[in-house]
Amino acid sequence: MSIIDRGLLMKLQKGLNNCITDITDVKVGHVTLYEKVNHQDTICTGVTAILPHSGSLFRKKVRAASSVINGFGKTAGLVQLDELGLLESPIMLTNTFSVAPVMQGTLQYMLDENPEVGDTASSLNIVVGECNDSYLNSMRLQAVKPGHAIQAIDRASDGPAWEGAVGAGKGMVSFGHKGGIGTASRTVKGYTVGCLVLTNFGKREDALFADFSKRNMNTPDGSIMMIIATDAPLYDRQLKRLANRTAAGLGRTGSIIGHGSGDIAISFSTADLYAHDSDSHVEKSAFIRDDHPVMNGLFQAVIESTEEAVINSLRKAETTKGRKGRVVETAPLD
Amino acid sequence: MSIIDRGLLMKLQKGLNNCITDITDVKVGHVTLYEKVNHQDTICTGVTAILPHSGSLFRKKVRAASSVINGFGKTAGLVQLDELGLLESPIMLTNTFSVAPVMQGTLQYMLDENPEVGDTASSLNIVVGECNDSYLNSMRLQAVKPGHAIQAIDRASDGPAWEGAVGAGKGMVSFGHKGGIGTASRTVKGYTVGCLVLTNFGKREDALFADFSKRNMNTPDGSIMMIIATDAPLYDRQLKRLANRTAAGLGRTGSIIGHGSGDIAISFSTADLYAHDSDSHVEKSAFIRDDHPVMNGLFQAVIESTEEAVINSLRKAETTKGRKGRVVETAPLD
Amino acid sequence: MSIIDRGLLMKLQKGLNNCITDITDVKVGHVTLYEKVNHQDTICTGVTAILPHSGSLFRKKVRAASSVINGFGKTAGLVQLDELGLLESPIMLTNTFSVAPVMQGTLQYMLDENPEVGDTASSLNIVVGECNDSYLNSMRLQAVKPGHAIQAIDRASDGPAWEGAVGAGKGMVSFGHKGGIGTASRTVKGYTVGCLVLTNFGKREDALFADFSKRNMNTPDGSIMMIIATDAPLYDRQLKRLANRTAAGLGRTGSIIGHGSGDIAISFSTADLYAHDSDSHVEKSAFIRDDHPVMNGLFQAVIESTEEAVINSLRKAETTKGRKGRVVETAPLD
Amino acid sequence: MSIIDRGLLMKLQKGLNNCITDITDVKVGHVTLYEKVNHQDTICTGVTAILPHSGSLFRKKVRAASSVINGFGKTAGLVQLDELGLLESPIMLTNTFSVAPVMQGTLQYMLDENPEVGDTASSLNIVVGECNDSYLNSMRLQAVKPGHAIQAIDRASDGPAWEGAVGAGKGMVSFGHKGGIGTASRTVKGYTVGCLVLTNFGKREDALFADFSKRNMNTPDGSIMMIIATDAPLYDRQLKRLANRTAAGLGRTGSIIGHGSGDIAISFSTADLYAHDSDSHVEKSAFIRDDHPVMNGLFQAVIESTEEAVINSLRKAETTKGRKGRVVETAPLD
Repeated sequence: MSIIDRGLLMKLQKGLNNCITDITDVKVGHVTLYEKVNHQDTICTGVTAILPHSGSLFRKKVRAASSVINGFGKTAGLVQLDELGLLESPIMLTNTFSVAPVMQGTLQYMLDENPEVGDTASSLNIVVGECNDSYLNSMRLQAVKPGHAIQAIDRASDGPAWEGAVGAGKGMVSFGHKGGIGTASRTVKGYTVGCLVLTNFGKREDALFADFSKRNMNTPDGSIMMIIATDAPLYDRQLKRLANRTAAGLGRTGSIIGHGSGDIAISFSTADLYAHDSDSHVEKSAFIRDDHPVMNGLFQAVIESTEEAVINSLRKAETTKGRKGRVVETAPLD
Repeated sequence: MSIIDRGLLMKLQKGLNNCITDITDVKVGHVTLYEKVNHQDTICTGVTAILPHSGSLFRKKVRAASSVINGFGKTAGLVQLDELGLLESPIMLTNTFSVAPVMQGTLQYMLDENPEVGDTASSLNIVVGECNDSYLNSMRLQAVKPGHAIQAIDRASDGPAWEGAVGAGKGMVSFGHKGGIGTASRTVKGYTVGCLVLTNFGKREDALFADFSKRNMNTPDGSIMMIIATDAPLYDRQLKRLANRTAAGLGRTGSIIGHGSGDIAISFSTADLYAHDSDSHVEKSAFIRDDHPVMNGLFQAVIESTEEAVINSLRKAETTKGRKGRVVETAPLD
Repeated sequence: MSIIDRGLLMKLQKGLNNCITDITDVKVGHVTLYEKVNHQDTICTGVTAILPHSGSLFRKKVRAASSVINGFGKTAGLVQLDELGLLESPIMLTNTFSVAPVMQGTLQYMLDENPEVGDTASSLNIVVGECNDSYLNSMRLQAVKPGHAIQAIDRASDGPAWEGAVGAGKGMVSFGHKGGIGTASRTVKGYTVGCLVLTNFGKREDALFADFSKRNMNTPDGSIMMIIATDAPLYDRQLKRLANRTAAGLGRTGSIIGHGSGDIAISFSTADLYAHDSDSHVEKSAFIRDDHPVMNGLFQAVIESTEEAVINSLRKAETTKGRKGRVVETAPLD
Repeated sequence: MSIIDRGLLMKLQKGLNNCITDITDVKVGHVTLYEKVNHQDTICTGVTAILPHSGSLFRKKVRAASSVINGFGKTAGLVQLDELGLLESPIMLTNTFSVAPVMQGTLQYMLDENPEVGDTASSLNIVVGECNDSYLNSMRLQAVKPGHAIQAIDRASDGPAWEGAVGAGKGMVSFGHKGGIGTASRTVKGYTVGCLVLTNFGKREDALFADFSKRNMNTPDGSIMMIIATDAPLYDRQLKRLANRTAAGLGRTGSIIGHGSGDIAISFSTADLYAHDSDSHVEKSAFIRDDHPVMNGLFQAVIESTEEAVINSLRKAETTKGRKGRVVETAPLD
């Protein structure tokens, strides 16, 4: 069964670039760190930033939700995101031991942009997700610094996002092959849904989308971060429904959602920006009705784009040499 | 892509009868109601009872958990099950408008068994799940009575469970074909995991396990109830992790977890019965470590048995004629 | 410390009748069953219906949410309410063993009103809450029938709700004294918040609002149902925030939220009715901003009205004689 | 109504030092930063570390749970804590903008202790809570560095914990007066429950435990972190029940659980250390039965110790001068 065969089972049309940046104004930026330190240690990691739009993310928040499919992960920022149904920062991805410096850098970036925050009382909620790249990356060296987070944000562009062994994906391993960043998108009645994943999960033999060799690399359970963006007007409860559907897309790839896996989805809508300040005490909005058929289309779009984003993360990732001389090869797809 | 091809992707061994009753002492009973009332109306429905064991379910509770994959459903009894991590009744399945009589009958059954309950202060938590069989069944006639629930419990046996258009499955439709009751099981290092489903979801074109015709029946979103049983010693938090994995199994069948679908999983373990009364103020137990590889095996067992139980529910269901002369045909599988 | 002292700590103004029916068009109806059967058994129970408005509850749903403060309870209907953020039935209250007949009667009432439901595909989600009145009521006799639920709905009026030992409150016991139905309301910047409770919890010595005698009746943990209504325009996530605040109100009465207590809050807003059918695929609305000071006012209103509704349920409840000759006395308040 | 009057309503006995460190081997350490930078800016903040025991927290984890009473907060580490029911780091408290450096320092501390982590595949989950001290502290200066976290851990002792304007509490404001760190404990049938809070919430007029002047400082909503420790043998689901009860204790102080408040509870039990590595695939344990009366005692202990810890945080906090010449005075208690 080849990827092409699987593709036939996809029912929705892909977005323009089959990319999360197909949602207007969504931007992605990567910083990749790759350096052999000595015969044991290699820095093979990075940072990826997903920006919901190009304006002030604090001043113009987006509706958002999360879904913890399996919680063996260190993602920061979900408590407030869930309480308020709003995202007010970029979504940052990195390795497990770099959540702190990436949070620090992103905070600094936003403090510089918003001189009033922390002075006249507001605070800032930074969202950082991670996977454990310690198979290839000398994670204990903590090579990622706050400045790298700022750089990733600065580099964010709305062109087709780079995929594979870039940014936070540099050192990731998936289904026994090189994983990393993957993305895909689908269109539904004029709306677009995009998914960007950071893949670091799966044993070779688990893959449903390809017949990898039976030999299995002894990698830990790993994780996957799944970012869902859409321009469909949805609010937090509905966005959570979208985020929940990533579990089905994940299931289609063959994931068993392993014990040690942090499988976490964050979804947001760019349709209805929520001003930080407002003169009005009510907020007017118009959201899709849950019972309208377009909602099922959006669910399907999440599932298909999650599945394909995972596959794309492998397809685009080049063979990478990491610490201790370890080499993880490109998956034999296509 | 045929079912047989899919089967090759299954990695775990099936249980003795590939059935939820492969877990020692788990019992299943069905009552099927099928009667043409007039040229418009047909009673085409039923009740299915899953008993965790053959003793007093109130006196010897089982550890349990639930996972609401999508909550467009009327399942009763989950609030207390989630709070205490215990199941103290059979799990009953029926149609959407029969939750009340089935709850009533099951309560009566248990009150008769436990004369002290409701007298010297205890209460009883009855768990009832449902799917909407109104495409074939004249659901508004409310043909299911409390006695049918009692009958289903009385009939429960630990032999291979009947599948297809039986019990609560009599009137269900799945992937545009006849659905209903399906079951499957897997073994993992001496433990067994079984799944029993009540399928009533999916459009023809959604199926990933078969190439059904493109013509789509205009059926509503439907639902699926998924009951996971195991003899592995697990407590509520762990059982919730198992229940959560049904979403991946569901995704593998092609489900989009539609808006109008009540996709609900309930899991229980028979390993460690919890006495209603105890002289001790502590409860001794021994549970599997989450980080032991067997846990991932159990997760995989849930995914595989959920996927196959769905397929089996179609495979075993015979063509059925229901209200308004509607006919739903057996799926062309094998 | 007297109730009057406590009253001084209340900061918000009471609504017109200090009653949940101060929210325009909210209606409450009671059916009380009270009959000595023999020297052992007394029927001392009932049904209470809370209607969000006087129109078709199925055709015009209200935004709603729930909060399970402690889940030792059998409340039905929360799964769908939470998934969709909508309430489409009256909220019914009764005793623990009467959830089924009350669900049955309410379903029948709504099926009669909506002949298309269950025929052309829709379903109906009925919400029923309960407390265990078996100290005074011969609960095993199951005296409540489906017709009583219909009667309670039919009797619902928007006048000041009866309190104390009426409807579902007839057999309840709270803080060692007669409890039952209580209600209170507060106004905040033109909005009204009302709370109706069914009290059946608390030991004498737990009360913070009165100095009851140290002698403690040996009653089980009991439960409390808390229904919060408001005309403030809020959606489900916000209504959940309101429902969550009942825990603080409960804490102020002295509740320890006991193990065996089903402490469950359901909140709804009448401001923005949600049509079952719509030609539009989006739903326009305007909700209060979470960061507007009025939101904190609404939170305070929930806390104060929950606390006072509990006290009122005792204040208004008359001494009641139940099964086995048991007598529960009016609390010595005022 | 004075604190002494309120005290009469407490029913349980206090622990030896009325302190979270009454739980054997629980340790608390503070680092306080206080320095006038210029006429505008003052560093007035700190770090507090709570250690569940004095051994390796990674090698010997404790059972744990969390409860998000209101989620306007940036607490990190809850996703994994909730999934696994385990805590494997100290619980660190600091100001809102210092979550990252405190996470960084704590990670470094634990990496130094555990050279294998991040090398042979494990990861580390660090828990950091925060409140916003920007009324008194020049939070934008980010004076807290990773080294301060390490220092707080190193200083942790099992003696009576310092309270008031120390550690993370240095710059906090509560009920219009100086808040900060407070603690209290209760004993129940040989078990001890302790609570440590970081208070930064409440308007003067909200206080139920004292009659503060009506004049209200215009402080933001603020937050409270509540750490519950016990030596009672409980597992995660039960510990979540304990954590949930903090809402009632909070309600008793007069909190309205304001919109902008991050009101977050974390609970752990020291009774049953969970080895990171084990030769056995099962974990033996013995937990308190939920239905044993001691459980209600533990609930009451949580409520009383939370309430009193809040009051103690004010009682012990000295008048503090912070940025912009602002002065927050000691509460007139006793």
